Amino acid sequence: MLNEKNVQLGKVRSSIRELFEYGKSRKAEIGEQNVFDFSLGNPSVPAPAEVKEALKDIIDNTDPVVLHGYTSAQGDFSVRKTLAEYINERFDTALTADCLYMTCGAAASLTITLNAILNAGDEVITIAPYFPEYKVFTEHAGGKLIEVKGKKGTFAIDIQNIEAALTPCTKAVLINSPNNPSGVVYGEADIIGLVKAISDYSQKHGTEIYLISDEPYRELVFDGGTKVPYIMNYYDRSIVCYSYSKSLSLPGERIGYIAVNNKMPGWEEVYAGVCGAGRALGYVCAPALFQQLIKRVYNVTSDISVYKRNRDRLLAALTEYGYEVVRPDGAFYMFVKALEPDAKLFAERAKKYELLLVAGDDFGAEGYVRLSYCVSPQMIELSLPAFKALADSYKN
Amino acid sequence: MLNEKNVQLGKVRSSIRELFEYGKSRKAEIGEQNVFDFSLGNPSVPAPAEVKEALKDIIDNTDPVVLHGYTSAQGDFSVRKTLAEYINERFDTALTADCLYMTCGAAASLTITLNAILNAGDEVITIAPYFPEYKVFTEHAGGKLIEVKGKKGTFAIDIQNIEAALTPCTKAVLINSPNNPSGVVYGEADIIGLVKAISDYSQKHGTEIYLISDEPYRELVFDGGTKVPYIMNYYDRSIVCYSYSKSLSLPGERIGYIAVNNKMPGWEEVYAGVCGAGRALGYVCAPALFQQLIKRVYNVTSDISVYKRNRDRLLAALTEYGYEVVRPDGAFYMFVKALEPDAKLFAERAKKYELLLVAGDDFGAEGYVRLSYCVSPQMIELSLPAFKALADSYKN
Repeated sequence: MLNEKNVQLGKVRSSIRELFEYGKSRKAEIGEQNVFDFSLGNPSVPAPAEVKEALKDIIDNTDPVVLHGYTSAQGDFSVRKTLAEYINERFDTALTADCLYMTCGAAASLTITLNAILNAGDEVITIAPYFPEYKVFTEHAGGKLIEVKGKKGTFAIDIQNIEAALTPCTKAVLINSPNNPSGVVYGEADIIGLVKAISDYSQKHGTEIYLISDEPYRELVFDGGTKVPYIMNYYDRSIVCYSYSKSLSLPGERIGYIAVNNKMPGWEEVYAGVCGAGRALGYVCAPALFQQLIKRVYNVTSDISVYKRNRDRLLAALTEYGYEVVRPDGAFYMFVKALEPDAKLFAERAKKYELLLVAGDDFGAEGYVRLSYCVSPQMIELSLPAFKALADSYKN
Repeated sequence: MLNEKNVQLGKVRSSIRELFEYGKSRKAEIGEQNVFDFSLGNPSVPAPAEVKEALKDIIDNTDPVVLHGYTSAQGDFSVRKTLAEYINERFDTALTADCLYMTCGAAASLTITLNAILNAGDEVITIAPYFPEYKVFTEHAGGKLIEVKGKKGTFAIDIQNIEAALTPCTKAVLINSPNNPSGVVYGEADIIGLVKAISDYSQKHGTEIYLISDEPYRELVFDGGTKVPYIMNYYDRSIVCYSYSKSLSLPGERIGYIAVNNKMPGWEEVYAGVCGAGRALGYVCAPALFQQLIKRVYNVTSDISVYKRNRDRLLAALTEYGYEVVRPDGAFYMFVKALEPDAKLFAERAKKYELLLVAGDDFGAEGYVRLSYCVSPQMIELSLPAFKALADSYKN
């Protein structure tokens, strides 16, 4: 008998991937420009020019034995030092290189962190809607994912729901802001409320609760006024899981980091757990060339103005057609209320208009669909009549 | 409470790494050229020129959105197809792209494979000496590593020892040839004997036993006559875990693959398990740029003649000084019998001569030390008087 759980995971493609594959074959049938694929979160904006330049320069001017050699398991020291200093400057923290652990992207950041802190039966609270792989990652690490609903309509953090979900088994709260799939950014009041709830609970019950912030979309906020609070400034027992996949449009290259808050009592133990979990999961080091790349372009992003333009256009048009849209302040996702109670049926009907939308059920939020608008502005324009026709089809 | 097992793993550096760190500080004290560091298996020969050229060409001539985008979780189809065809041509197999799963190197190949096939309590047999992380990987996947001694003196496979270790819980046998740490290559008779033992046992007891071949050193054999049998030609229920770290001197870049033998009944289930385990461990895809690189240089290796020269020089000199050396036919490791029963004490004494050797105890073979001779020929020459003096110190 194989490991049935993993066999099933391997067989059942996520519904997002399923829809993406459908889109590919549909495009082959009726032409690329006639299918409006809003299924996948694959950045459509190229990596910034600095990436190409830096890659070539590094390859040209570094001894290949050094460049392509093993780095330390935590990542190259000078890379970690550069990033620690940058984080300190940006967020007024006092991290050192030894708080950082370079990873193969956000998924690795999360699996390593969860395997560092979880024991069998531990609970991890997350706020719906949420990225469905959280469940896979948590369960592999022996934990149980506890889904807590966000506030109706806004999907902000609902503190009462958090309080109701806290138990002596709660080991961590995992947040993702800007959020996939809703695009919502948790404001400072949200974070303060959340931190108070878990601090109060853990103090009262003598437990320790980690706050994990999954931040692949941190740099993707569109309005100057939108702040994404840095959790280390609000809660000591916190860990940031970062990735450059979206900010630098490098999702296939797998590069990110874990930052362990050194204000947390016993943070060195947590860091040791991260190193050990990385070993046990088979992560020897993060890709060496891309570590060196990050050292050079850590403060650069792709041209995210395209995503803002897409958001603005879609938000205005869909609202005009009568859709109820959760206002997205970041990431490149939009959560739209389905025009019938069952979002899966709605998404099925959308397919008739060649609109590929993912039902929110998979993200723990029924009655909504997710649109990934990391697509070309041209496709957005072409898709608008389809959105209108879909809305109109419900008006008869 | 954190995950104590992973915390401990993170705290206790492997003794190899420990020695390497000692070497670094010792070099700072007495000068680089005066420390003879044979501790680490970090290739000293640069990646071949084709790697640099191909990397630059790919970066220059590929749309960055495509190049750096997510590949499918299994890896880019055209990359897998190229590799399947190459394997078929070389080893007379009939693999398809769908038998291959691109990974972040050998460690990832192994952890993913083990998580695909193991259930709690399953046993994995390996042959000592062996790479110590096998234990870490197996235990994380819920299994138990069963260490079976190789033949005395030659470290070939001891079939009787294998037979004695087989139980109804045996789920896999994990071999590594050319072997780290001994450099020994298992010949065809070894493989045939091993396969017969596990076939007989599984037939008799109605169990299924997987043969996993960890092959990062396949291309590193030094004599034309040395053949490394391809296990798929001998046993259907087999899986090859491959890496380009050593053959292309790219250990920091993390690129390799898993090949599932499609002659095995139900191989698609095993492949699904691999896909699922990759997901659960957080491997989204193997680094995209390096997947494309491999598509171009899959049949190239670094200049391994340097390793052969090192082997020949060391083998001759050490034998002359009175050491008993296990003849290494591949990899870049040499297993040398310690000149006292306790190899750790021997390795400690070697340090006085500035020779950094790893005691074989960590590889499951007492009484030996491992030399990694992926170093410069100059260092080998400089180290010889120290080896002689160390041997002489036992003659008084």
